[in-house]
Amino acid sequence: MLVLSSPSGAGKTTISRALLKADTNLVLSVSATTRSPRPGESDGMDYYFVSVAQFQRMKSDGEFLENARVLDNFYGTPRVHVEKQLSAGHDVLFDIDWQGTQQLRENARDDLVSVFILPPSLAELEHRLRGRAQDTDSVVRKRMARASDEMSHWPEYDYVVVNTDIDNSISQVQTILVAERLKRARQIGLGEFVKGMRGA
Amino acid sequence: MLVLSSPSGAGKTTISRALLKADTNLVLSVSATTRSPRPGESDGMDYYFVSVAQFQRMKSDGEFLENARVLDNFYGTPRVHVEKQLSAGHDVLFDIDWQGTQQLRENARDDLVSVFILPPSLAELEHRLRGRAQDTDSVVRKRMARASDEMSHWPEYDYVVVNTDIDNSISQVQTILVAERLKRARQIGLGEFVKGMRGA
Repeated sequence: MLVLSSPSGAGKTTISRALLKADTNLVLSVSATTRSPRPGESDGMDYYFVSVAQFQRMKSDGEFLENARVLDNFYGTPRVHVEKQLSAGHDVLFDIDWQGTQQLRENARDDLVSVFILPPSLAELEHRLRGRAQDTDSVVRKRMARASDEMSHWPEYDYVVVNTDIDNSISQVQTILVAERLKRARQIGLGEFVKGMRGA
Repeated sequence: MLVLSSPSGAGKTTISRALLKADTNLVLSVSATTRSPRPGESDGMDYYFVSVAQFQRMKSDGEFLENARVLDNFYGTPRVHVEKQLSAGHDVLFDIDWQGTQQLRENARDDLVSVFILPPSLAELEHRLRGRAQDTDSVVRKRMARASDEMSHWPEYDYVVVNTDIDNSISQVQTILVAERLKRARQIGLGEFVKGMRGA
């Protein structure tokens, strides 16, 4: 399980999309959300778009690995999809915030690698949020206030990437993913391989 | 501190040289040894070639971070050079065996990343040892016996690379090095950077 977190606008979604495109073994954990689709987002691909009533039912039935309220919307990760992907041998990418990451650490038994994406500066973050022109001025102001909160959680993550250049940041997260797969504890069958060589 | 270990002939030295060439921040920890120089090796670059008496004096004076006897020779890492390089902000590469790695973990206070290089098969290992034509038949046989011992220690390492293709293995160890530098705990000044952004 690979978790990417960052304040909104720091580049997390762009990095996630590039990772998924370049790495066919990596699949996105699709979250359920009560917020409205943004232009270009489709149901079942980017999110499962659900009503508040549906969300509350899933939550009370224990269907979420993690869930959180962000501004006026709810977000949650349905457990069943993640477990299916992991069983099939896929690595699963999570695009969630610090609250979700904390819950995921507690609720999921599978191992987890977490990466925090920082913007190069607050001014640049605001510039990017205004640049994507999909939020109202009041939403941008709320996101900027929340960015400061989100950023205070960087010490809870395994890795930190400062997103000054998007291509470089994509490459850095890919590097983390490849290196983590080389960790001894994740290389299944290595014990048998060495035993075989040693004639044991 | 980046440690590479492997049975003799598995490609560790080739990988080390490629890493050092590509990465100017990485420097080799030069070991002291009582063995004779191989063709192309020079004193102070590949090893400090010392007499058995000199080696024993350094050992009893506590000058080694780790030392070991391998076949009929002694090897040791002089502490002073390593500490100087680390203080200067360099990453230090260690080309040592499992015995040395265990001692380094105990004796060095700096953080350590360890990578074990496995050959694709024992037959290939023997082929490589004979191919380099620098050892007598009896030394090759000793090395093969020792390879089996060395390989039994792979579970003590953070990462494992199976050296089927040398270019691919070099790239994998480079990837590990870059990813480890992105670890949150190694990014000095990040706390101040985030504090500055948050206006705290």
